[in-house]
Amino acid sequence: MDKIKGTFGRRVGKKKDNVSPAVIRRLPRYHRFLGELLKQDKLRISSSELSCLMGVTASQIRQDLNCFGEFGQQGYGYNIRYLHKKIGELLGVNREYNAVILGAGNLGKALISSHMFERRGVNRLAMFDINPEIIGKTVAGIPVYSMDDLPRFCAEHQVDIGVLTTPKDAAVAVAKTLAELGVPGIWNFSSNELSLEGTGTIVENVHMGDSLMLLTYRLKAEKDEADK
Amino acid sequence: MDKIKGTFGRRVGKKKDNVSPAVIRRLPRYHRFLGELLKQDKLRISSSELSCLMGVTASQIRQDLNCFGEFGQQGYGYNIRYLHKKIGELLGVNREYNAVILGAGNLGKALISSHMFERRGVNRLAMFDINPEIIGKTVAGIPVYSMDDLPRFCAEHQVDIGVLTTPKDAAVAVAKTLAELGVPGIWNFSSNELSLEGTGTIVENVHMGDSLMLLTYRLKAEKDEADK
Repeated sequence: MDKIKGTFGRRVGKKKDNVSPAVIRRLPRYHRFLGELLKQDKLRISSSELSCLMGVTASQIRQDLNCFGEFGQQGYGYNIRYLHKKIGELLGVNREYNAVILGAGNLGKALISSHMFERRGVNRLAMFDINPEIIGKTVAGIPVYSMDDLPRFCAEHQVDIGVLTTPKDAAVAVAKTLAELGVPGIWNFSSNELSLEGTGTIVENVHMGDSLMLLTYRLKAEKDEADK
Repeated sequence: MDKIKGTFGRRVGKKKDNVSPAVIRRLPRYHRFLGELLKQDKLRISSSELSCLMGVTASQIRQDLNCFGEFGQQGYGYNIRYLHKKIGELLGVNREYNAVILGAGNLGKALISSHMFERRGVNRLAMFDINPEIIGKTVAGIPVYSMDDLPRFCAEHQVDIGVLTTPKDAAVAVAKTLAELGVPGIWNFSSNELSLEGTGTIVENVHMGDSLMLLTYRLKAEKDEADK
């Protein structure tokens, strides 16, 4: 069988992994909503109920969720626990990844203090910074080391994800170091859009400002509408 | 002419605003890249150069940018300054919006200290918190007031955007208060996905954890591929 690698490293021609990048990008939201339903002890949900809850059409939901298998039974709806688990497995949740945070400023502190990592099966191992005032301390129970100790730390620990929250000027150099140290994934919050093609390191760029622009766009569109 | 309101409050049937929500979501990224090119004193760029830079197909770029007018001239490429300006106008950049930040914790501090707001023509007016230790102080030159002062502040100032960084438990109540006070836009970082339908307040939800899941998905896909 020919193996063709798609945008997300998926393999075409194999049922389970044959999910389009567009659907993949929507799956974390399903995972969140299904997780909330589980907390409320719900067992089953129909595509039309899920549609109301999520503000997506029922047909879109059926299309998205049928992509990677048949979870819905006509008239019975989806088994929430099973679907939540399957989506989580597909997304690599609970694979026990290890993360380090580069930069112990406000953003680094905010991220490490959130429940985001644990919930997705990602262990927070350590933070790294260049500021002597914070090196040696802990944030949310996680030790802060000197950036100089990063190579040794990566040699001694399995580090899967580097969370990049350094200032923009330092980000490229730190990202290159992470790639050289063989860290396979970078979650990049610096405003530089990084690409480390050819290094084997994957970068997921986060641009919070883009979402602020979508908000100002929507405010502008509403106002223009009201002014007419 | 019939006015039909689309998902983003756009008006169908009017050339300039007739941009699909999918294209709108991609525009902030174009705006960023074009802004970087301007800083490098570039004047023109072809769709194929932009394609290499952004990792998008040239045909996608032509489609996206033709949606709201003809900016490219065959053989000459795009006028970067003009395109940057037009995309900015469409997205409502530099409309002089006023924002307040609800919650002066690490995330609130990280956001208010970034250049994100200024760059998009959004003024940072004030922060609000319930912690007496921070009330009365300033963060990045912006005053922190008591949450109790929010109604009076909103009565005395034009507040367009409330940036919600409070803990999850407080978020719904604060969002409702903002809507009651007539604040038209909420940029929501609390992990609650808010919808304030019927209040006239628009919510842009940010879920940073979703992007962490996309990273773990890609790590998993790469590893599965390598293991085979």
